[in-house]
Amino acid sequence: MTRRVRLGVAGLGRMGRLHAENAAAARGIELVRVVDADEGLARRMGEELGCAWSTDYEDLLADDRLEGIVLVTPTPLHVAMIEQAARAGKHVLCEKPLAFAVEEAERATEAAARAGIKLQVGFHRRFDPDWVSATARIRNGDLGDVYLFRTSLRDMSPPSLDYIRNSGGFFVDMTIHDLDTARWMVGEIAEVAAFGAALSDPSFADVGDIDNAVVTLRFENGALGVVDNSRVAGYGYECSTEVVGSKATVRVGDHRRLHTTWLSAGGARLDWVSDFIERYPQAYRLELEHFAASIRDDVEPAVTGADGVAALVLAEACRRSLDAGRPVSVSPAAGAAEAGSPRVASR
Amino acid sequence: MTRRVRLGVAGLGRMGRLHAENAAAARGIELVRVVDADEGLARRMGEELGCAWSTDYEDLLADDRLEGIVLVTPTPLHVAMIEQAARAGKHVLCEKPLAFAVEEAERATEAAARAGIKLQVGFHRRFDPDWVSATARIRNGDLGDVYLFRTSLRDMSPPSLDYIRNSGGFFVDMTIHDLDTARWMVGEIAEVAAFGAALSDPSFADVGDIDNAVVTLRFENGALGVVDNSRVAGYGYECSTEVVGSKATVRVGDHRRLHTTWLSAGGARLDWVSDFIERYPQAYRLELEHFAASIRDDVEPAVTGADGVAALVLAEACRRSLDAGRPVSVSPAAGAAEAGSPRVASR
Amino acid sequence: MTRRVRLGVAGLGRMGRLHAENAAAARGIELVRVVDADEGLARRMGEELGCAWSTDYEDLLADDRLEGIVLVTPTPLHVAMIEQAARAGKHVLCEKPLAFAVEEAERATEAAARAGIKLQVGFHRRFDPDWVSATARIRNGDLGDVYLFRTSLRDMSPPSLDYIRNSGGFFVDMTIHDLDTARWMVGEIAEVAAFGAALSDPSFADVGDIDNAVVTLRFENGALGVVDNSRVAGYGYECSTEVVGSKATVRVGDHRRLHTTWLSAGGARLDWVSDFIERYPQAYRLELEHFAASIRDDVEPAVTGADGVAALVLAEACRRSLDAGRPVSVSPAAGAAEAGSPRVASR
Amino acid sequence: MTRRVRLGVAGLGRMGRLHAENAAAARGIELVRVVDADEGLARRMGEELGCAWSTDYEDLLADDRLEGIVLVTPTPLHVAMIEQAARAGKHVLCEKPLAFAVEEAERATEAAARAGIKLQVGFHRRFDPDWVSATARIRNGDLGDVYLFRTSLRDMSPPSLDYIRNSGGFFVDMTIHDLDTARWMVGEIAEVAAFGAALSDPSFADVGDIDNAVVTLRFENGALGVVDNSRVAGYGYECSTEVVGSKATVRVGDHRRLHTTWLSAGGARLDWVSDFIERYPQAYRLELEHFAASIRDDVEPAVTGADGVAALVLAEACRRSLDAGRPVSVSPAAGAAEAGSPRVASR
Repeated sequence: MTRRVRLGVAGLGRMGRLHAENAAAARGIELVRVVDADEGLARRMGEELGCAWSTDYEDLLADDRLEGIVLVTPTPLHVAMIEQAARAGKHVLCEKPLAFAVEEAERATEAAARAGIKLQVGFHRRFDPDWVSATARIRNGDLGDVYLFRTSLRDMSPPSLDYIRNSGGFFVDMTIHDLDTARWMVGEIAEVAAFGAALSDPSFADVGDIDNAVVTLRFENGALGVVDNSRVAGYGYECSTEVVGSKATVRVGDHRRLHTTWLSAGGARLDWVSDFIERYPQAYRLELEHFAASIRDDVEPAVTGADGVAALVLAEACRRSLDAGRPVSVSPAAGAAEAGSPRVASR
Repeated sequence: MTRRVRLGVAGLGRMGRLHAENAAAARGIELVRVVDADEGLARRMGEELGCAWSTDYEDLLADDRLEGIVLVTPTPLHVAMIEQAARAGKHVLCEKPLAFAVEEAERATEAAARAGIKLQVGFHRRFDPDWVSATARIRNGDLGDVYLFRTSLRDMSPPSLDYIRNSGGFFVDMTIHDLDTARWMVGEIAEVAAFGAALSDPSFADVGDIDNAVVTLRFENGALGVVDNSRVAGYGYECSTEVVGSKATVRVGDHRRLHTTWLSAGGARLDWVSDFIERYPQAYRLELEHFAASIRDDVEPAVTGADGVAALVLAEACRRSLDAGRPVSVSPAAGAAEAGSPRVASR
Repeated sequence: MTRRVRLGVAGLGRMGRLHAENAAAARGIELVRVVDADEGLARRMGEELGCAWSTDYEDLLADDRLEGIVLVTPTPLHVAMIEQAARAGKHVLCEKPLAFAVEEAERATEAAARAGIKLQVGFHRRFDPDWVSATARIRNGDLGDVYLFRTSLRDMSPPSLDYIRNSGGFFVDMTIHDLDTARWMVGEIAEVAAFGAALSDPSFADVGDIDNAVVTLRFENGALGVVDNSRVAGYGYECSTEVVGSKATVRVGDHRRLHTTWLSAGGARLDWVSDFIERYPQAYRLELEHFAASIRDDVEPAVTGADGVAALVLAEACRRSLDAGRPVSVSPAAGAAEAGSPRVASR
Repeated sequence: MTRRVRLGVAGLGRMGRLHAENAAAARGIELVRVVDADEGLARRMGEELGCAWSTDYEDLLADDRLEGIVLVTPTPLHVAMIEQAARAGKHVLCEKPLAFAVEEAERATEAAARAGIKLQVGFHRRFDPDWVSATARIRNGDLGDVYLFRTSLRDMSPPSLDYIRNSGGFFVDMTIHDLDTARWMVGEIAEVAAFGAALSDPSFADVGDIDNAVVTLRFENGALGVVDNSRVAGYGYECSTEVVGSKATVRVGDHRRLHTTWLSAGGARLDWVSDFIERYPQAYRLELEHFAASIRDDVEPAVTGADGVAALVLAEACRRSLDAGRPVSVSPAAGAAEAGSPRVASR
């Protein structure tokens, strides 16, 4: 029998509950304890899932049986909680983003490295079978050289303004998923140029944020890329990618909720997924099982703290580009000024 | 917390293992014991899933804690095992078909009725969200009157000849799923006409069976229907349906394994599911949870022994039609002879 | 320059006007004259298309320059008009069906044969690039042996009852297209079994006709087939086919009017073609150009009078099967009685 | 009868021949004369299409019967030839681009305006039913406010290096179509930012050009946009667009050559169009008929010289952005320098 890795979940919002439910159902995981500041919520989930519950993060740290923590608390708490977990020798799967600032995130990765704990970051798309399959075949050379990378991430409707205000901003909250996907599928990014606007509601601008963006990428290997994001797509949740290469082109997307088609006078109606939870149930399960397997087999997870930092570096570069109104180089030492060299160069 | 219904699984072939794994993962189910005549297999699964195991069906019947049995043994054993379970007061979820002959199947339903146990039959399509959604909307009147029902069930490659020989025949083994779907989505069937042939390999004919069939249906409400089945479709597993109605038409199908598209010179390549286990993971989970919920809430399951008998009556009628080379009426009292009345009639 | 073949069009209903417009636009055709009993209609079309016009079929027969006639008059007039054309040495492209009865149709083919004129029958699907491509690849062996043939032809809404009354009946008017397609793609048909019903409106039954049908086919090469037809599909015009073979399976269909997709909350909306004229503009053009090329190059057309007769034989067999309530053999000598032999046979 | 507008075609390369063939087939057009410097080519086309032919552009200008000229000569000749046509009082449909430089193009539009001739520019997409339908519905308000515009134009394989060298550069030759589409569907563009690279072959860079590009757009109404282009997509010809709006989102694309699907072990294969001529036969026909109708009815064409100039202004801005490595404002008076203002603003 596969050894059951003993995990706890901290934070029982929508994503935290999903992780807790997945932990309770996974054959290779024993859900030991759930923790949330809201006592009623913690009790309900503990009773529902048949595990211990409490309101104090310390209870997870102090539990000798517990091996790893799924951290689904608000982003501003991530770094300190990772540092605590590191001191307690507990591995951490942390929801994205690691932090709102690169420096903060680096404190977390350094703490994890010092303590020798595993730190996995919640870029769930890396575990979805569609993306995994496409990326594996790209690495296998089936696509040849990459020419263009194109990805869309769009929400059907925006979160509350209160959420927006505390989200770290559009690029850190939303684009970060695509920046990680770009790095994973194509390679490191040398330059970004962000266009953004608050188009659906001036409230976004009032809090200094945007609701739509187009981000152009130049990869270190010369390939070009583009990300488009929207908080207000209206029709449904969109998460689709296309990579154009010298040998082939791959598309991931077309994610329907049901495979029924209703035909009536003049046309057909297909349904569509409405959000990431509806789209990615399998990815979240596999992400969690990967974390448990990393602990069980003592191997590095496929998405590390370093990946979380790298995506944050890119998200910050997007923000700088948006503010400056010009492309910015991504290397930490480089500012916006030096981007502006002629672009006609062969590989 | 949802009460966990205590189940055991009898028979650990491919489907039995799947049911056992689903039982082990389901929050509302406690997998108490698995049983298989093959001791090594039983032990492996018991250890893997963390439950008791043994080689004797009696161990399930004798276990006082156990409430229901998932019966995945060879079809010839079904009826006697259901009778035993009924005497022991254990509910049964029985894989299709209930039996190879209608009379046999009726012994099982009668035993279940006398004992007051629940008897659910494994028509898993009834639990797949696509089919559930389409059928719910048809019942809701969204489709209007049904004119045509059309369904395809095709396997990528045939089972072994040994399996074929002991399968109960093409209609009982394969078409039975479509006959159940037809009854469920449209209503009772008055008349069937079966065409069949052994086209890929004369071995099918050697054992008195076929490998392809087209079955025409006339429903009691006047609608027409057609089922096509193949054991040798080659390209993948097909399970798709279309219902044409006076207000709308619905299609269920288009079941891909991945949502990636690979484009290369001149065309696009989409993948396809290869078998029912790849296509229906969710349906099998929901089917099992429905069985547990029926026990927990003491309500009749949505697919009963009577449905299993009705589908078998239709499958037998298909065989009689094939042998006689003409349509046959389905009512038990009716033979093939009296089918042959003029067909032009309005509703 | 390609020699322009000089054609006339007889009958300026909807299809006649389409043929006349195509003739006027085709580089290899000179439209010499249009004829219709309705003088106003004939004049309008003649002036619009810049050709002679009149109300008398004799004017086409008497015109020495004219080489061929596109016959789009009511079916009851076809045979006599073909006989006249044959006597006048004019080639004929005749809209389907050739006649309402096999004997009548044979008079036309015999007259054509005696006179040595070309007689093409208007099965336009034979010229549509999708069907042409699929059939060519089947003949090339890409599909292997055929196991199943499945085709749907459905109209969005029915023609007038007056049209129905004079249509020759459902099978002769509608199914005949699919019977021709079946022969063309798979081969000769040995046996048919028709189920039909008047489901949308009792008026269909009042005039002795049906509005929906399912016809099962057994090909001489052993393959099975099924045609479903409806006059009242509601959602649009459907003309789609699937052929399942030992090496591959091909589908033709999915015919949209526009390639735009509108997405709104929860789903996507695709449009659909509404009738055969919207679906098959290219096929009608190519059919006419094929007729002209057959005259120009003095070769037999790809769809001959014999094909028109063969399809009519099958349509009549469908009607006999519907009336008798059982399968019927197709060979002219055979009646319904002898169909009924056991069906389990290998190839 | 619709009056036939008398047109001539100058330049009989691939596109010129297509226009000439369309002119010969169109009911409302009389093809009077074709002209090409290559005498053999001119004679062949004249004989094939049954019209006069010669090698001298003057022959078109001097023909009193001729009303309009379809100008499909090399771009460097466009402006002078339009000026000549204007002096001769002949209307002009000019293939894109009008010229390689904005100033040149403006000479053409001024000459046309002074002479009162119609000057239509060959942005064929404006006449394709898919694009026409989508744009009409956007104007009708079905989409609400536009948030994002996204379009891809990709060739399967690049033209010769010799063509590239004389093409006016990537943006003028290729992106110009998308820039026109963007203006047409969404509105005027305030700012562009171009990323480009020579990725498939250093020869592109050797001649100072690129083979792939991503261009970000900011529309005057605040909406964001992105164009991606490739000369080397490999898999086929791509021309697809998506417009995300507050009420709905529309996609145009998915352009298959045939509607057949071949299924074999594990997957399905769809074909794809390979170039613009295969994709847009209808658009080219309708474009030409629109030009003829503009002359016949004496109305302004839907795509004017001013549109040709505007697209060229944008293409030049793309080039300046690429060279400068930063966004550039589009207004003629504005240089690259002043682009760089903060981007967070509500509408």
